[in-house]
Formats: sequence, structure tokens, C-alpha cells
Amino acid sequence: MANAPVQRMSQLMAKTLRDDPADAEVLSHKLLVRAGYVRRTAAGIWSWLPLGKKVLSNVERIVREEMDAIGAQEVLLPALLPREPYEATGRWDEYGQELFRLKDRRGGDYLLGPTHEEIFTLLVKDQASSYKDLPVSLYQIQHKYRDEARPRAGILRGREFLMKDSYSFDLEDDGLARSYALHRQAYQRVFERLGFDYRIVAATAGAMGGSKSEEFLAPADAGEDTFADCPNCDFAANTEAITYELKPVDAAGVPAAEDIPTPETPTIETLAAHLGVPASATLKNLLVKVDGEIVAVGVPGDREVDMGKVEAHFAPAAVELVTAEDFAGRPDLVRGYVGPQGREKLKYLADPRVAPGTAWITGANKEHTHAKNVVAGRDFEVDEYVDVVVVQEGDPCPLCGTGLKLDRAIEIGHIFQLGRKYTDALKLDVLGQNGKPVRVTMGSYGIGVSRAVAALAEQTADDKGLCWPKEVAPADVHVVAAGKALQTELALDVSQKLAQAGVRVLVDDRPGVSPGVKFTDSELIGVPQILVAGRRAAEGVVELKDRRTGEREELTVEEAVARLTA
Amino acid sequence: MANAPVQRMSQLMAKTLRDDPADAEVLSHKLLVRAGYVRRTAAGIWSWLPLGKKVLSNVERIVREEMDAIGAQEVLLPALLPREPYEATGRWDEYGQELFRLKDRRGGDYLLGPTHEEIFTLLVKDQASSYKDLPVSLYQIQHKYRDEARPRAGILRGREFLMKDSYSFDLEDDGLARSYALHRQAYQRVFERLGFDYRIVAATAGAMGGSKSEEFLAPADAGEDTFADCPNCDFAANTEAITYELKPVDAAGVPAAEDIPTPETPTIETLAAHLGVPASATLKNLLVKVDGEIVAVGVPGDREVDMGKVEAHFAPAAVELVTAEDFAGRPDLVRGYVGPQGREKLKYLADPRVAPGTAWITGANKEHTHAKNVVAGRDFEVDEYVDVVVVQEGDPCPLCGTGLKLDRAIEIGHIFQLGRKYTDALKLDVLGQNGKPVRVTMGSYGIGVSRAVAALAEQTADDKGLCWPKEVAPADVHVVAAGKALQTELALDVSQKLAQAGVRVLVDDRPGVSPGVKFTDSELIGVPQILVAGRRAAEGVVELKDRRTGEREELTVEEAVARLTA
Repeated sequence: MANAPVQRMSQLMAKTLRDDPADAEVLSHKLLVRAGYVRRTAAGIWSWLPLGKKVLSNVERIVREEMDAIGAQEVLLPALLPREPYEATGRWDEYGQELFRLKDRRGGDYLLGPTHEEIFTLLVKDQASSYKDLPVSLYQIQHKYRDEARPRAGILRGREFLMKDSYSFDLEDDGLARSYALHRQAYQRVFERLGFDYRIVAATAGAMGGSKSEEFLAPADAGEDTFADCPNCDFAANTEAITYELKPVDAAGVPAAEDIPTPETPTIETLAAHLGVPASATLKNLLVKVDGEIVAVGVPGDREVDMGKVEAHFAPAAVELVTAEDFAGRPDLVRGYVGPQGREKLKYLADPRVAPGTAWITGANKEHTHAKNVVAGRDFEVDEYVDVVVVQEGDPCPLCGTGLKLDRAIEIGHIFQLGRKYTDALKLDVLGQNGKPVRVTMGSYGIGVSRAVAALAEQTADDKGLCWPKEVAPADVHVVAAGKALQTELALDVSQKLAQAGVRVLVDDRPGVSPGVKFTDSELIGVPQILVAGRRAAEGVVELKDRRTGEREELTVEEAVARLTA
Repeated sequence: MANAPVQRMSQLMAKTLRDDPADAEVLSHKLLVRAGYVRRTAAGIWSWLPLGKKVLSNVERIVREEMDAIGAQEVLLPALLPREPYEATGRWDEYGQELFRLKDRRGGDYLLGPTHEEIFTLLVKDQASSYKDLPVSLYQIQHKYRDEARPRAGILRGREFLMKDSYSFDLEDDGLARSYALHRQAYQRVFERLGFDYRIVAATAGAMGGSKSEEFLAPADAGEDTFADCPNCDFAANTEAITYELKPVDAAGVPAAEDIPTPETPTIETLAAHLGVPASATLKNLLVKVDGEIVAVGVPGDREVDMGKVEAHFAPAAVELVTAEDFAGRPDLVRGYVGPQGREKLKYLADPRVAPGTAWITGANKEHTHAKNVVAGRDFEVDEYVDVVVVQEGDPCPLCGTGLKLDRAIEIGHIFQLGRKYTDALKLDVLGQNGKPVRVTMGSYGIGVSRAVAALAEQTADDKGLCWPKEVAPADVHVVAAGKALQTELALDVSQKLAQAGVRVLVDDRPGVSPGVKFTDSELIGVPQILVAGRRAAEGVVELKDRRTGEREELTVEEAVARLTA
């Protein structure tokens, strides 16, 4: 085995801190800063110190090995990109404020790549001309840029971040399905090797466009995603991606709609209390402006509307809540008493729970008045059914009806069957076997490389500090010289022996630092094995400690080396 | 030895081209595009295809190994940087149009890092507090951004490019000298391993500031630098960096200055012809405006002024040539007849050849009149001596006087003893052994990683195509299946055997491509060894060809494998 490096802490730039940084909200942010892995350079923009860079490079290496293993070819595209391709696909505008835009000295428009579908599509357009050139999967590991509104959560959501993005190009849908499956398997191997606890869940495609899409989620309190898990069947999905089937009911026995006086009941709470009915019997009508036009969204009165889902539904159109001014200009909209029935037509979207045949208590479009027995499809028409309510713990599984469990998680990977959105926009065809042009179909696959470091820290840290899985740790063994010259000499000697056997060693040889501080730092830094040259150094006896379990054992140097190189 | 990869060309994205790209001016640009290593994404912005990425990664690896070997620690800093630190050192403005500047969604000012002195200085300021924390050398391999006025020469001068930059931090000047020497040695090893023909020459510090500085230059026709080499002694320098000692002469025997009528002689050529003297006997006075103030620069009449050197001398002040309007406003400046003597004071810089005691023919500050016997230091004062003339082949070596040889070269590395320019601006002190703060001194060291790929291509290519040195080649062996199924089977079989022995193989198994095209492509792609499964495939005989020498030999498969794995 080749010689591994010995990194001496006396020379290492990795200052540990006793206190959490003032601006840190999440565990990984606190610990990665305190343990000397990263430092903040600007909001959402980070510098990786030597230990952090080692972990980042380990993640990179594992990702690269698994991408190579499925035959994906590594390339490297620019981060500074011209406007034109993004203009052609509409993303120059659609990305809104999240895109970093800039001009060069000649006034040309450029952007910092948030993701590279356009550029890969053009690259393949340049390189591939025939069905013989496909399928091809290309990847790169490269910095991405997104001007997040609230860069928070440390490395978990930065404005400059390292990502592995890959793109598959196939002739046919079944080819795309194969490329997708290959990536899915590669991602499973990557996340297993990285030591993640993760779930694969159904996802929405978001700004990428396209159809089938799954996310790799790492459950963690600091996660910004919520996913639903069925305790009974295989269903698991990002709550953003849960959709329910529309189940019409028979409204034959429902009496005709009828107005009822409901003084001073402009909210669901006051209405339900006044009538003595559950909120779920009422129909809440949320008014929004979509590119200036007022649209109503009907949901059961006990459900919250997820504005993110509403925005995603109408994207790229801008969605705003209606204001007092909007009501002033529309006397037909009686604030607090709006209903979809018996009125001038209002564009109306509704939750699938407001299925045809269901009967509701809702606003009567008059002050202090509601209506009951208002039946969907009989008394009003729904223009479109949309899943925009906030999913709640216990909501039925869309597959088997069992109550869903909800958890927070960090998105660490995302795979998409994009289809032809980009190849249509940029006209990527190759000649098929029959000599006719075939529009290529595409997949897009991403792993947040820098985010994976923070997500792993979140999942694996304990109350003493970081606690890395073996393959990503900045070293295999952290040797601590707990004492004076004798201990330091032994620590350096055993470090050398380990390194010669191919073990990556971090050795704490800092002079004038107490054993207590060194122990605390070793637990904060989180290398899996800690080897202490301490009290019994003169006898050649060291202590081997497992960072995670805390189990410790006294061994001779020879035994320790044998154990660690086994 | 570990299994190496077999890259099949039938699946590889590396389209070769028969013709040079229309916009290509230099050899490396033409060949890297034609051989399918890179593609242009925008002006000065490049995409690296699989073969190119392999070469780039090989260069990266060699640089990383040699930097690690001198104890430099790898970090990774952002490319997107806040304005403030660059404001503090003045470079936010000094960089002028070369800096890519942008705003984030909150209107904050950012830049794309052209080089990272400021950020490293701040990082060390955060991490180091005592003399015990120094010396430290840090490096990163990362993209840099410079908005070149004329991005040309392909990869040699891009607007986004990959660079290894490192920075040393020392307490004292002798420490800086040691860190500098370590980097110098590491760079020598890097460039030797990369297979460069290179020279180390004295350089000017340019926009980095600082004092001692040397460049690593790779002689090549496409180079943008010119360096001078003494055939007699060790002297070698970028012509930008050549300075001459001032050698005063005795003017005792020179008669008094005297005006002479010289009708219609506003140029050196007309003047010399009129008087029948060599141009070198005349003193040419170039007028420039420095931040609006008119300054004269005096050089012998036979020498050209290098405006780049003039600009560098006055930087960051802006330098412009004077215009007809400027003359109109200054009747004391008689166009074509300006002289430094006998006139109202003019700020006057001069070449060292205009040493005290030297006598000249120059303008008399009157129309159609010059003056002779005008002696520097007697008849006029020089405010400052500057080396701003264009160095010419045969100019004397500043050390031994021998005529210099001039050559074009590409700058592949640059090392600087920066000193305290940045640590002063950003106030980086550590506590010294005596308990008092010590201002840290700094070195800055760069290798153009992407440029090195192009520079190597320039130096090693021949008329058939690229021709890589072993350590950077995208593969060790290029196996060519020159024939049908039999040859392809043998080619894939021998490729597998080689890979199992740790040899990196590129195998041309493209169906339906003629042997002739495959041979041409193998020479264009430039892998050092080419192994052909051709006419004698049925006997298990292959041909091994050395790409550089063209020497070829028939061998059995077993012999070939033994030879290539030796």
C-alpha cells in the first residue's frame, strides 16, 4: 500500500473554537465552523479550510468513481455563461432574482450557471449527429451559483456551491428510462458509501421542467424539505409532490343551496363556531392575483394553502395575495364572504377534496351571509383541480389510504426525466436509423457535493462534535500526543508507522496545548478512530478510542498499528 | 497494480475535425479543438470534453502532489467575492475593466476573483494569532476570471481559467525567502514532470505589487511574452523586467549647447537625414498625459517606447498620448521640436541611456529648430530614470554586456515575494516571540493549470497533431482496431489485458470507420503509444508505434503487453 500523509496539527490551519458562531442556526454550520473546516467569506459564500477540503475531496472522489462506473464521461463546462442559450429556453427570465447576471466589458450579458441543461444540450448538439453517437451520459463536478433570497443554514444552502451534475441523452423514452435507472443505482451506491441514512421519494420537477423525478433525501431536523412516508405501503414523496386522485360523489340527496344569515363571521373560525360545524364542512376561498388577474382557490376550511405550491403551479407567472385596494375595485368580491356560486364568473381552482358532488358551506357573496348545501359541479364549476394544501401528518396515503408520517429532510440528490424541454428549445436532433431526424430526450441528475458534507455532519454529529463516516473522514486516525516530549515522540513515531501502512493520519503534536484541550478537539474534529499516547507512553502503550461509541482499549503500539491497518 | 480504465471511442464524446476552426490563431487552439479536447462556449470561455478533462486532471494531480510535498495545505476559496477586501487594497478600482463585477439581489457589490491575495490574507488573519502559527503556505486549484480586452489564443488566454494559486505567510524576510525557494523548487519539479521545456526568468511584479519575482516561461511561437537570454552568462529576464544601470559620463569636453536651424524636420527620420547623423545621436521626447498632467519621456531617437511599460510605471494612474488639443493649450510645447532644455520646467523622465553627461541633438522648443550639444544634467534635469524602451535583439546584457537573444514564450508560472502590500492594507499581524505584534510578510505563487495544457500542446505537437508527454496524456496507449470484427475483438481483448495491468487505454473500436481515418485520428489525439490490431490480427500479431518518433514494430500480443507494462 502506498504511503499515506501524516498531517501535523502543529502546522495545520484549522483553528477550533469553543463557542458557536453567532450567526449559526443549524448544527452543521456550528460544528463545521467550530471544528475549523470552513469559514464564511460572505453571505452564503464559504471558504474550505484544509480539513474541510479533504472531506469535500473525498465526497468528490466517491461521486466520480460511481459516475465513471456507469459509463458517464467527465467533462468540465464553464461557470460563466452567455445569455443566449438561457434566453432560448426562457430560463434567463424565469430564474428571476435567483440568477446572478453580469455584463462583460463590451456590455454582453452573462450569467453564473445555476445548472447547465442548456450548455450540455448545445455541447451534444455539436458532438452528436447520428443515432450511433447515443446514448451518452456526461457529468461534471463544478461550482454553481444561485442568489438565494435568504442564504442560511451554512453550507446547506449557499449561493456558491459545489455540485455534480450529469445529463443523459437518449433517442427514445425507454433509453431515457434506462439512463435514469443507471443514475438511480449510482446514486444509491454513492449515498451508501458516503454513509447516509437516506430515502428516495417522488418529487416535483421544479424549475428544471420535465416529468418523472425523484429526490434523495437525508432525514435531518435542519432539512428544508418535508417528506411523507407511508407506514403501510412503499409510498414516499416530498410533500410538495403529493397529489390526490379526484373522487366524485353522488349529490342526488343534497337539498338546494340556501343562503343563511351569519353576522360577523368573516373567518372560518368565527363561521364554524357560529354554526356549530367543523371547519372541514366549510369551503375557504383564497384570492390571489396571477399576473394581475384575480383567481380563487377553494380548499376545505380546515386546510392551509401552501403558497409555494400555488406559485409553483402558476410559474413562471407571478402570484400575489389580493390587497384591500383590489377589493375596493371589485365590489362583487365581498371580503370574508366570497363564494364560487351564484355570481359573475370567477376563475376557480380547487383542491381535489372539493370533488364534484361534494357539498359545502361557503360565502354567499353578500355581507354577513353564507350559503349551505353548495355543491361542486352543480352550483359552481371548478376550472382546474390542483394540489396546493399543506400536507399534514396523518393525511391519507394516496396509494393505500393509511395515515402518512411526515419528516424533515435535506435534499442531497435529485434525478429527473426531463424529456424534450431543452432539446425542443435548442433543437437537438440526431439522424435516426431510418435516416430521419430524431429529437433527443434528456435526463438531468444532481448531487450537492458541498451540501453532502453538511448533511452528513447533520446526520452523524453527536453532542461532542462531528463524527465522520470512514470514507469521507479527513483522516483515518487522529493521534493525540497527550503529554510532553515523550508522548509527542511516540505519537509521531506511531503516526509514521501507520502512514507507511497506508493509513491517513492526523496527529495532534501541538506544543503547549493541554491533553484536555486536545481530547476535546479530537472529538470536535470527528475522525473515526482516536489513538492517545498518554500516561503509559514510556511502556509503549497507547489507548485506542472509537469516536462514535467512546469504547476505549489499551494496546501496545504494535497491536494498535496491527488493528488500524487490518 | 489497480485496474485502469478502458475508454472505448465508440462511446466517447470526442468528435475530431479535419479542418481548423475558423477563429483559431494559434496551434494549440487549432489542435485541441480538432482533436476533440475542448469546445468554445463564448469568447475566452471554454468547455473541456472528456479527453481534455483527463489531461487537465493529470496536470492538476501533478501540481497537487508537488504542492503537498512542500507542506502547502490545500484549501478552496470562493470565486464569487465581496467588494470590501478588494476595496481595502485598492484593487477594486485598479483592476479596471479586467475585473468582472456584479451585484447581488440586494444590490451588494461582488466580483469574480482574478486572484485571491485579499481573501487568503483575511483567512490567515482569522486563523493565525501567534508566531507559532507561522510559517504557513496555502494553495487552491480553482477558476479565476479576467475580462480580457482581447480573449484570443484559445485556452492560452481565457476569461475563465483554471489556476493553482498559493500564498505563503512568514514573520520575517528570510522566512519569505525560504517559502519562495520552496515554491521555486516545487515549480521546477512540476514543470519537469509535465514535460515542459521552460526557463526561469526575472519578471516584474505587475498588478500584484511586491518586489522579487520570477516567471516560468515555456518558449513557443504563440507566446505573448518576450524574454531575453544572455548567450554568455546566466542572465534571463522577461523583456518587461530588464533594467539598466545608470552610467554617467564626463561631459567636460562638450561645447555649449547651440540652436541649429532644421527646417521641416518634425520626425527623427527627417532630422537624422537632414543632419546626416544616426538616429541614436538624437533625443526623442515622447509626451504623455498622466492623470491629465503632461509628462515627457526621453529616449534615444533610435529606440521605440513600450507604452505597456510606461503604463506599468505610472499604474494605477491612467496614461494617454497627448492630442492636438493638448498642444493647442500649451504654446510652450512646439510639436516636433520639443526639448527638455532652456525652457519652462517640464516633468521629465528618461531612459538610462540618457545618463548624466551624455550629449544629444534634440528639439529647441522653436519651430524648425533643434539644438545640439544638449547635455543631460548640465542643460536639463531628469526627474526620474525609467526603463521603458522596447528591448531589441542584440541589446547588451545588463550583467555582462553580451548581445541578448530574444524569444517568444508562454508564461506558465509566476512567483512573487509580495512583502507586506496586502498585510499592510488588511492589517495582518501576529504576536511575535517578544509579545509584540509583527506585520506578516507574504508570497504569492501561480501556475496556470488550463494554460499549461495549451502550452504543452504548443511545445509538443508536430505536423500530425498533438503529442503528449507521458504523465499528462489522456491515456498511456491508443489501441486501434484497424479492420472488421476480428481486429475489433483483438483490440478489445488486448485493451482489457493492458488495463488489468494498470495501463490506461483508449481503444478505437468505432464500427464503420476506416483504418485510415482511425490512424489519422490516433496521431491527432496524440497518445504516446499506438497499438494497431490490423492485417496480422488472425496470427495474434499487432503493431506498436511510437507516436513521436513514428518507429514501429510488429509484436505478438503477449510481447506488446509485456513491453507496455514494463
